[in-house]
Amino acid sequence: MRALVKRAPGPGFDLVDAPEPIPGPGEVVVAVRTTSICGSDLHLYNWDPWMAAHLREFPRIVGHEAAGVVVSVGEGVVEPNVGDFVALETHIVCGRCYQCRTGRAHICRHLKILGFDINGAFADLVKVPAMNCIRVPSSIPREWASLMEPMGNAVDTVLAEPVSGLRIAILGCGPIGLMGIAIARASGASLIIASEPSPFRRQLALQMGADRVVNPFEEDLDRIVMDLTDRDGVDAVAEMSGSPKAFLDAIRIVTPGGWIGLLGLFSQMVSFDPNDLIMKGVRVHCITGRRLFSTWDLVKRFLASRQVNLDRLISHRLTLDRYQEAFQALSQGEAIKVIFDMDR
Amino acid sequence: MRALVKRAPGPGFDLVDAPEPIPGPGEVVVAVRTTSICGSDLHLYNWDPWMAAHLREFPRIVGHEAAGVVVSVGEGVVEPNVGDFVALETHIVCGRCYQCRTGRAHICRHLKILGFDINGAFADLVKVPAMNCIRVPSSIPREWASLMEPMGNAVDTVLAEPVSGLRIAILGCGPIGLMGIAIARASGASLIIASEPSPFRRQLALQMGADRVVNPFEEDLDRIVMDLTDRDGVDAVAEMSGSPKAFLDAIRIVTPGGWIGLLGLFSQMVSFDPNDLIMKGVRVHCITGRRLFSTWDLVKRFLASRQVNLDRLISHRLTLDRYQEAFQALSQGEAIKVIFDMDR
Amino acid sequence: MRALVKRAPGPGFDLVDAPEPIPGPGEVVVAVRTTSICGSDLHLYNWDPWMAAHLREFPRIVGHEAAGVVVSVGEGVVEPNVGDFVALETHIVCGRCYQCRTGRAHICRHLKILGFDINGAFADLVKVPAMNCIRVPSSIPREWASLMEPMGNAVDTVLAEPVSGLRIAILGCGPIGLMGIAIARASGASLIIASEPSPFRRQLALQMGADRVVNPFEEDLDRIVMDLTDRDGVDAVAEMSGSPKAFLDAIRIVTPGGWIGLLGLFSQMVSFDPNDLIMKGVRVHCITGRRLFSTWDLVKRFLASRQVNLDRLISHRLTLDRYQEAFQALSQGEAIKVIFDMDR
Amino acid sequence: MRALVKRAPGPGFDLVDAPEPIPGPGEVVVAVRTTSICGSDLHLYNWDPWMAAHLREFPRIVGHEAAGVVVSVGEGVVEPNVGDFVALETHIVCGRCYQCRTGRAHICRHLKILGFDINGAFADLVKVPAMNCIRVPSSIPREWASLMEPMGNAVDTVLAEPVSGLRIAILGCGPIGLMGIAIARASGASLIIASEPSPFRRQLALQMGADRVVNPFEEDLDRIVMDLTDRDGVDAVAEMSGSPKAFLDAIRIVTPGGWIGLLGLFSQMVSFDPNDLIMKGVRVHCITGRRLFSTWDLVKRFLASRQVNLDRLISHRLTLDRYQEAFQALSQGEAIKVIFDMDR
Repeated sequence: MRALVKRAPGPGFDLVDAPEPIPGPGEVVVAVRTTSICGSDLHLYNWDPWMAAHLREFPRIVGHEAAGVVVSVGEGVVEPNVGDFVALETHIVCGRCYQCRTGRAHICRHLKILGFDINGAFADLVKVPAMNCIRVPSSIPREWASLMEPMGNAVDTVLAEPVSGLRIAILGCGPIGLMGIAIARASGASLIIASEPSPFRRQLALQMGADRVVNPFEEDLDRIVMDLTDRDGVDAVAEMSGSPKAFLDAIRIVTPGGWIGLLGLFSQMVSFDPNDLIMKGVRVHCITGRRLFSTWDLVKRFLASRQVNLDRLISHRLTLDRYQEAFQALSQGEAIKVIFDMDR
Repeated sequence: MRALVKRAPGPGFDLVDAPEPIPGPGEVVVAVRTTSICGSDLHLYNWDPWMAAHLREFPRIVGHEAAGVVVSVGEGVVEPNVGDFVALETHIVCGRCYQCRTGRAHICRHLKILGFDINGAFADLVKVPAMNCIRVPSSIPREWASLMEPMGNAVDTVLAEPVSGLRIAILGCGPIGLMGIAIARASGASLIIASEPSPFRRQLALQMGADRVVNPFEEDLDRIVMDLTDRDGVDAVAEMSGSPKAFLDAIRIVTPGGWIGLLGLFSQMVSFDPNDLIMKGVRVHCITGRRLFSTWDLVKRFLASRQVNLDRLISHRLTLDRYQEAFQALSQGEAIKVIFDMDR
Repeated sequence: MRALVKRAPGPGFDLVDAPEPIPGPGEVVVAVRTTSICGSDLHLYNWDPWMAAHLREFPRIVGHEAAGVVVSVGEGVVEPNVGDFVALETHIVCGRCYQCRTGRAHICRHLKILGFDINGAFADLVKVPAMNCIRVPSSIPREWASLMEPMGNAVDTVLAEPVSGLRIAILGCGPIGLMGIAIARASGASLIIASEPSPFRRQLALQMGADRVVNPFEEDLDRIVMDLTDRDGVDAVAEMSGSPKAFLDAIRIVTPGGWIGLLGLFSQMVSFDPNDLIMKGVRVHCITGRRLFSTWDLVKRFLASRQVNLDRLISHRLTLDRYQEAFQALSQGEAIKVIFDMDR
Repeated sequence: MRALVKRAPGPGFDLVDAPEPIPGPGEVVVAVRTTSICGSDLHLYNWDPWMAAHLREFPRIVGHEAAGVVVSVGEGVVEPNVGDFVALETHIVCGRCYQCRTGRAHICRHLKILGFDINGAFADLVKVPAMNCIRVPSSIPREWASLMEPMGNAVDTVLAEPVSGLRIAILGCGPIGLMGIAIARASGASLIIASEPSPFRRQLALQMGADRVVNPFEEDLDRIVMDLTDRDGVDAVAEMSGSPKAFLDAIRIVTPGGWIGLLGLFSQMVSFDPNDLIMKGVRVHCITGRRLFSTWDLVKRFLASRQVNLDRLISHRLTLDRYQEAFQALSQGEAIKVIFDMDR
């Protein structure tokens, strides 16, 4: 089968012929129909030091945002059935650690990630535990199915506390930030301020439902927030950028007693005065992964009901052999989400 | 000044000339501009036994849903200022009981209610504690201002827990149930099922945003709920009717682990099997009044942003002297909200 | 092997020789070391109509409160290992329904209960899914191990919301009520009032940590509660009795804005005025089962640290062949917890 | 009257004769009976740059931890009454800002602090708003009354989420950290690990209820925590030291999905990798002040019931004229809490 792999340490991927996976007990094999590129895939492609440290075995089939049809099931699998169209939860959990036992499997202590710790989904076939398959109802466009995984991150961040009737700032309008805007809008936020340096992404932020977009490097974010909130500051901030400046912005613009959700990962240390946070009596929610599987249920309903529409986020639809073109577009900031149509 | 009063025990109200109120320390007098009729006013008008028991002093100026302009302020009042347009919180609280001291003033142990325990707002002027005045921004239509009080009840019931991405049933589509539908819609509920016997109100329920309306006496509510929810039942039920049948409906249609909000007051006892509730692991939230004053902030934002639009709920606009016409329309189920334009 | 069974509909159990169970995939067989009798076992023994309706297949090995040593494991089992001493979670869940998928497996839609829906644990060997085995650390006395299951119910009820620094009433001092008193004490409740008609159990309630015990049929519970709480009422009520009178007591003695936990199952309908609950702005938490498995972790820590001591609750230690004596003692109200030492 | 004042910028205080305060409308004057020295008073005494920035008017009567008897009340005061023994809430709030209106007055936007922004309590008489007086029941030793204010900080930090049956680390064993240990113990924490460099304070930590004390500069805190928690880490960390090292310790020792409470104020910037926090899915609760007034109710009950005993924290009992001795003992780390007996 075709598979996009990291053959050895260093930049780039290769499209190779790989052996087909066979499902073990409790596992299924999925014929991949649609995939999408995550920011972490780009880091892996570019062999950024931080991400490189996470990949230890070679060759490794990469990619994790994926959906497809179950084609074979291993022993003991009750669900899903062969023929089911499923999206993949990309965190493979142990089921036995303290976190797994206490309803927090998304932060499993022995977490394995598809496309990093085991072979991934940029391939014709992928093998995963049966429980990692989420059945996608036919009311959701297939093209959106591989985007459900990152959308789960956006849901857990923006809805870490209720936003209905409240004012929220979203810092960073990459794909997850843009999804977060749509989720906040659908969930009743009364004011959504989006901060993002790229004009292209700010434009998309408005289309996804932001009330006001701000270039944090050229405009006075603090003043704009205060002007739009009766000088209260925002009730919530979703940090989606991983930028130290945004971290500090969040602390300044949140209203005392409000909350900050941290999702974006940082590539450098942050220096700050904790008193600025403490004196405001703020709550900080750190988000990683998606709640298994209540978040998926929310994602499914938001999409099936069209409360959230992902069409605008798909900037490129390509076949897998054009992967170099895809990563180049992403590197140059020209793409939001690149979808690989794996059927062709 | 003009004032609508209950002169003595028994049905009916009288429009009389009453002395003008003078604000004491910490009090303000408001020139009433717009008022609306609450269901409890109708009970009082009809002298229903249950409501009658709450009125002990006569004559009493009735009415509590009201907004107007501050015309005089008593000693020590810092806010509001003369000239401010304000809606009235109708619960007057002691500020010193256990509930008031611990952030739950809306269930104050020494609660006094405007138009019941002290003179009310169906009059040219009304006197209230300064803290009971909520400034209404000019971005909210004045005609909606007296409706903010009952809307607060709807907010606290429907948003007792988050509804974003969840499925909710609203039982009873009186004015507060209808507001509840709009709030659930604005707050991201993925499915809203409204149960209401009156065809007129079911029609309004659809206009306010319900996905499906049900006549609980002629249709099979349970089957409809199960069909629309993959046989899960709804995640939440807002009981807005005070009907024993609806109480039992709520228990049957809620999914295990879901929640029920109880707002509607009952005029009769309810007999039920608590095991039906217990075995489902349900949470029940009992709602009375409005949180002081976080609920008001939500109401203001929902209205200023037009996330919720109240125009459809105003079925009658009358002058105060036509009050008999108003109560007759309400008695006959022809009205939703009757607004008195107090300026004329 | 020895097994206590319900052979056919009707009162009584029989001690018989039964075939030994063999573990299927994902299952384990446990050599039972200690068991205890639950109130539901007594109902089953007496063939009370309500409980009788839950048993449909005969013969059925009864009993579910149990602990023992794993002696064989089926295919695919990673944990526990042969030789592990484990307590049993008695709710067998499907893992796939909406409730299981969303972190609420304790209210699984396809729940099977040990000793009712499948063969139980009053036997030399019992077969259960591997995930239903909870490893018991050696720091917990073995004699307490079968009591961890009902203690989980007590934990989920008393700690439905924090009780630290608050005042709680516990209605009904059966074994779970008594455990609840100890848990409330350990968890920082400042005042614990226990209501129970039996003098024997009231005495135990004091020993488990109640500050004040009340005979609800002979004393004025309302007055006592108000006197002890500065006339506030209690912040929380844990209803552990299944008595309609206690249900009404709970509503009267809870402070406005407080909460009620309902655990006791009722053998009759309850008639009440919902307004009494609604006007108080109360939250009601309905409890069934134990959270899988965060509750078990709390139980383990409470016992291992001796924050809770169960010795006083064990009124009888018998061998299984003396089961008739055990059920008789329970029927006559002379026993709290009867432990069967299954080794002998 | 006698008053301890900061006459002008610079180190030290002076004991002077000051005019007696007269209560305005809504205010009361309290004859101070007992006071205690807060860490911030020491910073003020030493004129540390950070604290110095907060004091702008001179002379200023200092001190805020205080209790006494109401001797006169201003116009409109309903509570407290002359003769009541009261402790003082030291945060004077505006009652009108967004935070005050929404149940978060402890983070009022126009907060004034007793002894900083207005004249304080190290004097024979002090004037405060009536609402800032908390009646102290006679069941609480008078000597503890001025300690209720800092104890409120400890309550809000340690009980930011429930700790019953959980494992907590307390970083920093100053007076508030030591109170936090006692509160965690009383509230059912199963394991309390206290980290503190001072041997004197570590000894006190054990006496207040810590299971294990650690010198973070000489012992391997991480290893000790992991060894005592089955390698899970602690469920909660209360940061009470304001030390950058402790901030980093907290992130390392908390279990994924656990929480960190931040109370200690920092005198320097902190540099950290946010990913360490984010990947753990932690919640951070920033604490400042005390919830008005639910926290006070908890404090009162903990003390009246003797669930928490403060005797061990009072290291010095002095008369006000010996204030220099007091500040010297504190500077040298020989004191925990210095109480001024103001009657003498």
